[in-house]
Amino acid sequence: SKEVKEYGNYFGLTLLDRRSDKRTDSKWLSKKQSHPTTVYILFSNLSPLVTSGGGIESSQQPEIKLCRLYYKDVEECMNQTEESTLIFLGVELQFHMDLLAACNGRVLQDEEDGLVAWFALSVDSASAEKFEQKHEDCYFLHPPVPALLQLPEEEAGVVAQARSVLSWHNRYRFCPTCGSATKIEEGGYKKTCLKEDCPSLQGVHNTSYPRVDPVVIMQVIHPDGNHCLLGREKRFPPGMFTCLAGFIEPGETIEDAVRREVEEEAGVKVGHVQYVSCQPWPMPSSLMIGCLAVAVSTEIKVDKNEIEDARWFTREQVMEVLIKGNQRSFFVPPSQAIAHQLIKHWIGMNANL
Amino acid sequence: SKEVKEYGNYFGLTLLDRRSDKRTDSKWLSKKQSHPTTVYILFSNLSPLVTSGGGIESSQQPEIKLCRLYYKDVEECMNQTEESTLIFLGVELQFHMDLLAACNGRVLQDEEDGLVAWFALSVDSASAEKFEQKHEDCYFLHPPVPALLQLPEEEAGVVAQARSVLSWHNRYRFCPTCGSATKIEEGGYKKTCLKEDCPSLQGVHNTSYPRVDPVVIMQVIHPDGNHCLLGREKRFPPGMFTCLAGFIEPGETIEDAVRREVEEEAGVKVGHVQYVSCQPWPMPSSLMIGCLAVAVSTEIKVDKNEIEDARWFTREQVMEVLIKGNQRSFFVPPSQAIAHQLIKHWIGMNANL
Ligand SMILES: Nc1ncnc2c1ncn2[C@@H]1O[C@H](COP(=O)(O)O)[C@@H](O)[C@H]1O
Ligand SMILES: Nc1ncnc2c1ncn2[C@@H]1O[C@H](COP(=O)(O)O)[C@@H](O)[C@H]1O
Repeated sequence: SKEVKEYGNYFGLTLLDRRSDKRTDSKWLSKKQSHPTTVYILFSNLSPLVTSGGGIESSQQPEIKLCRLYYKDVEECMNQTEESTLIFLGVELQFHMDLLAACNGRVLQDEEDGLVAWFALSVDSASAEKFEQKHEDCYFLHPPVPALLQLPEEEAGVVAQARSVLSWHNRYRFCPTCGSATKIEEGGYKKTCLKEDCPSLQGVHNTSYPRVDPVVIMQVIHPDGNHCLLGREKRFPPGMFTCLAGFIEPGETIEDAVRREVEEEAGVKVGHVQYVSCQPWPMPSSLMIGCLAVAVSTEIKVDKNEIEDARWFTREQVMEVLIKGNQRSFFVPPSQAIAHQLIKHWIGMNANL
Repeated sequence: SKEVKEYGNYFGLTLLDRRSDKRTDSKWLSKKQSHPTTVYILFSNLSPLVTSGGGIESSQQPEIKLCRLYYKDVEECMNQTEESTLIFLGVELQFHMDLLAACNGRVLQDEEDGLVAWFALSVDSASAEKFEQKHEDCYFLHPPVPALLQLPEEEAGVVAQARSVLSWHNRYRFCPTCGSATKIEEGGYKKTCLKEDCPSLQGVHNTSYPRVDPVVIMQVIHPDGNHCLLGREKRFPPGMFTCLAGFIEPGETIEDAVRREVEEEAGVKVGHVQYVSCQPWPMPSSLMIGCLAVAVSTEIKVDKNEIEDARWFTREQVMEVLIKGNQRSFFVPPSQAIAHQLIKHWIGMNANL
């Protein structure tokens, strides 16, 4: 683990260096595609191909892990179907590499940079079925939520990156400016309109690039410093409460989005806002920006269109649930969610803000 | 000005309460559209209609301000052309209202909520020309950058909101999922595909909502604490240097985006990253997330594809430029830009991090 560790970073930690400079190097990309060390992870309908991680002995270990496939495994399927999408994810971080080279005493060939490239490959359902049949211990993780949260932390980061880009390709098939078909470029990170005189081809605009939706999520603290505001949506499992959250709007700061959302959803006014940490959330492609928010009013008025309930919880109530694991009265999201980390952060803080 | 003032908030301060709850209240919206107190601000080709603010006496004052039009001014144009787009921006903040009511001793009529609504109206070039002819002292701000930076701070926030949403409509005319035409809903904040069986109509997905692109912008501090890293792009005016910046990628945290961009652009490795403040940047619709980043390496290796130059500047050099205004050697962006605020923040900080 890194020296400087940001927390709440499930989906934020990664095994890979993105090497965005290689996205335009089509010669390098195509060489790596068929290189024997290159790792492929497979997706079907935005769900990754995984395998059970075993580990009965170590009950703390994640239960599942990504299936790492190689060119020989995917070659046939890539050439056969039109429907597959390929995304270049990056290369294994340098220190992995050096380790590998040192262990093997392997001599690098000419023109061989020794970089281990990773690709995400999205396949159609027919191919997906074939894979599951051929690789008996592997299966696609349907539905992806909450099952994705069982991946080892570093693999979750790879999945977050792949899934966000793939869901963009999935939903953004046509040029939004003119409605024409598009083609995928730059290792999967760019989409270009195929109509010659489309205005999207002039100048730089975001229509060609994957979307990242910034969201604020906030632990709202009562003016007395000893209560926090948690809410629940109708669709949550019974008993679950969590931090309020909402999309940042165009022309809005993080801090104002926090104030607006808390007032809209719970009728509580917020003064000071402090950034704490953030988390990519690939459902489909959000960036959760976690904040502490100090309330300056206390009366709750729930907007039933947005949430079902919101309440002030005492520090003791939250500690009971979070630290002692007594989930009789209510519970909060699991530790992989930034909400959990924000609540924990507050619990760890001095009571006097 | 607010008690808790976040800085770097040019484009982030606003006169308005967005009242997103009213976006689905079409009866209220259509009533407000023709209400005599309702304010319209006009756009042509993403540039607002402005007027000279006068003020020869107060040379510190902004030179231009928004033209506030009323229903009577825009009625004809709204009904005549197909090409106009209407966005509900919000209502004037409550305390303005109370003031108004108190001053006028005005009694509110039945069903009259007293809220002063604001709309942005984008018109085609023909109508735009007519407006400029009719309102002699008004003109559309072409090109918008850097002229937009001359607006008074609160008006800049309104323009940021309007311009971001309008540029979304401008570039996202067709459904990206199926390529069909779309219709605008919810006061301009939603876009729905007109094809009955389009997958975009099932479930919630971001294709229907305006886009906000998160960007990191960072003041990189030398390990000695007394130098900072500033760079320049080819397209900048000669002599201008500023903080490095770049788009956050799918599946990436703010902190990792900072580290990746600094390493990609300047070859410098970053350790600790700290959020400072943020700024909406409506060109077309970014959210600039401003950070301090502590370098752990010092050798600069510029990626000429991304930037033209990057250098370590001493604290004294930067103070000379920023505080004393001596811009002979180089200069930085104006105070309205978050880069300026980040640099200033560092100058104000203790030399020992
Ligand atoms: N959402 C986005 N909008 C515009 N450019 C983007 C976006 N995401 C990535 N890019 C890349 O950023 C470059 C422009 O960056 P800049 O010089 O900061 O405007 C483009 O050439 C793209 O490669
Ligand atoms: N980029 C976006 N993606 C999805 N929903 C959005 C977006 N922006 C705003 N919304 C709104 O947020 C609601 C869903 O919020 P949530 O319950 O957090 O998934 C939708 O009904 C939309 O009104």
